[in-house]
Amino acid sequence: MKPLPDLRISRLHALVGQGVDAIDTPALVVDLDAVNRNLQRMTGFATRHGVRLRPHAKMHKSVEFARMQLQAGAVGLCTQTVAEAEALAAGGINDLFISNEVVSVAKLRRVAALAHQLKLRGGQLAIAVDSAEGIERLAQAMQLTRAVIDVFVEVDIGQGRCGVPPGAPVLELVRQLAARSTSLRYAGLHAYHGAAQHLRSVAERQAAIARAADALRATRELLQAAGLAPSLITGGGTGTFGNEAASGLWGELQPGSFLFMDGDYQRNERDPMQPAFEPALFVKSQVISVSAQHAVCDAGLKACAVDSGLPTVHALAGQPALATEGGGDEHTILRPVAASGDAPGLPALGDTVWLIPGHCDPTVNLHAHLVAVRGGLAAGEVEAVVSVQARGVW
Amino acid sequence: MKPLPDLRISRLHALVGQGVDAIDTPALVVDLDAVNRNLQRMTGFATRHGVRLRPHAKMHKSVEFARMQLQAGAVGLCTQTVAEAEALAAGGINDLFISNEVVSVAKLRRVAALAHQLKLRGGQLAIAVDSAEGIERLAQAMQLTRAVIDVFVEVDIGQGRCGVPPGAPVLELVRQLAARSTSLRYAGLHAYHGAAQHLRSVAERQAAIARAADALRATRELLQAAGLAPSLITGGGTGTFGNEAASGLWGELQPGSFLFMDGDYQRNERDPMQPAFEPALFVKSQVISVSAQHAVCDAGLKACAVDSGLPTVHALAGQPALATEGGGDEHTILRPVAASGDAPGLPALGDTVWLIPGHCDPTVNLHAHLVAVRGGLAAGEVEAVVSVQARGVW
Repeated sequence: MKPLPDLRISRLHALVGQGVDAIDTPALVVDLDAVNRNLQRMTGFATRHGVRLRPHAKMHKSVEFARMQLQAGAVGLCTQTVAEAEALAAGGINDLFISNEVVSVAKLRRVAALAHQLKLRGGQLAIAVDSAEGIERLAQAMQLTRAVIDVFVEVDIGQGRCGVPPGAPVLELVRQLAARSTSLRYAGLHAYHGAAQHLRSVAERQAAIARAADALRATRELLQAAGLAPSLITGGGTGTFGNEAASGLWGELQPGSFLFMDGDYQRNERDPMQPAFEPALFVKSQVISVSAQHAVCDAGLKACAVDSGLPTVHALAGQPALATEGGGDEHTILRPVAASGDAPGLPALGDTVWLIPGHCDPTVNLHAHLVAVRGGLAAGEVEAVVSVQARGVW
Repeated sequence: MKPLPDLRISRLHALVGQGVDAIDTPALVVDLDAVNRNLQRMTGFATRHGVRLRPHAKMHKSVEFARMQLQAGAVGLCTQTVAEAEALAAGGINDLFISNEVVSVAKLRRVAALAHQLKLRGGQLAIAVDSAEGIERLAQAMQLTRAVIDVFVEVDIGQGRCGVPPGAPVLELVRQLAARSTSLRYAGLHAYHGAAQHLRSVAERQAAIARAADALRATRELLQAAGLAPSLITGGGTGTFGNEAASGLWGELQPGSFLFMDGDYQRNERDPMQPAFEPALFVKSQVISVSAQHAVCDAGLKACAVDSGLPTVHALAGQPALATEGGGDEHTILRPVAASGDAPGLPALGDTVWLIPGHCDPTVNLHAHLVAVRGGLAAGEVEAVVSVQARGVW
């Protein structure tokens, strides 16, 4: 038999320096030029408004993008899980906030070990709590180390997920936290309104954060009166951070999606108070089947998360406008869209179809690596293949 | 400082021999007793009906479950991607059918290499085609080797995804395929009706497969008249395989989900023609936040795929019935359900909540490993931690 082709190269989507057309599909592709512009817009905003920027790494889950954000002026990163924090710490990120509750004994031991490790490196770990038992369990775990962990009491400012209600419940928890000052440092309040981020109109988002700010202001006064004023309130996301910054309450913003953007955020009415971010995250797919009425590409549920809707087609110049239909694990069905003046058309077998995922966070989680390109999708080059180190479920 | 706790053990969800209560969350848990019963039901059905069983590995993506199915009598496995086939081949599975179209040159070279590799081991690779160009590209790639690949022409029997329409278009493609007999062997027809699997009523599913069978029977007659009778028609899924088997047309069934089942399949009206399968796939989650009205567990979009609906709560004896609401990447919101006679209740902080995912395939894809337990969810033990070797997007 003839010699075998080299298998190893074929298992990378592309090599650095290759053209975009060489990227095998389905591949998650990041437009680095757009990423850089989005990052400059966000850090510029934070600087102008005098607020700290701690981007949420649950979006990109990647050491490389975390480093890029720190270089641009971010004070640290947020993560949503212990595993994400461990992965970023392993990549040299020293200032991390787990913006979520952890109550498992096994995971709290990992939290303690991570706090210890970051302290040895001159860094700092922070975490959120929303219950007395959570504080107690965290304090128990922290006995494994002499490191001190920063603790933010999470306030439910309207999302109805985690956090205690504003007002007296916050004061009560802060009192309990302040009493554990040997290993737990009361660092402030975590107040993130996830449900407000995707309200479509500017007015709705503004109203939601205004209500949240009223409740939070009253809570802060209650804490001040008790001598327990929070030194920092942290929160805000890509949909609303302009409102949080304008309130004067939040001293730190946690947006994640601004860097890559996604289909869902692009369906929001743009808030003139915030910079305009551009799409930077795409799935490159290939047409593998064409019939008289439709085409099928090779990117399905395993390439794009669909919790915020199906991916949409991003037609480059000369490519047909296409509507998408769900096609299962490995396929998306593409149908022609009749545009005024243009004859509707279908792509040909083997053609490239670029998709914009509905939701960036769970889409990135599906991929082992991101192919980062410079010079655009039409004629750019691969600059890096970036590992998604914090991918995975825990 | 005190010595650090051992981090390595904490990064496995559980160790073999531990009780189910020791499994850290969120974890994908497989009930091996239920899996074995489901597999026996399916192989028993195939034996009684004289059809071959080639289960679809895009569901479990795991060498271990593929081996279990071969031991039970399956003739081989289906995969939906080249990467899945490569992963199973690396685990020693020798008879594989990529039940999908591949047109990328890079991936077709991998197909050729895999066909070569399997031939050296005495195995066989098969693949689907639905275009003349697909046949041409495959033939080109196969020139890299002297191995012969089995090729099935995919017929669109009603799903409207890949495949050529029944009748003359099939004959045309089969003629082109038969002309490439040096490296491509015409092995038959691939006819899978994905859209029929989740039609809720038995009557709807029966009618859909009856229409498909009529078109397929006429196509077979056309092929027979041309001296190109298919030696095998392969297809069928967990929702409809009883109909395919009863038709006398299909000689091989490809169900995948029957092994683990999922929330969506359990919402189908059960077909008395088919064995009853039981849920075997669960996500173990932990309550990390409790308020007056709701609780929140630590399994969100990264633990359960939601393309076929949110996960549902699988309440064990003594656990409260709970309804689910989406909570984002890392959370699901739980609300009490008032049951007649029982007081509705919420779980306590730290409690275990078992979820049944809506759709098994993309849920398994989210996890690096499956925790396989024996003896039930309430009091069982971990028997194995199974890698999801074929996880990933390509």
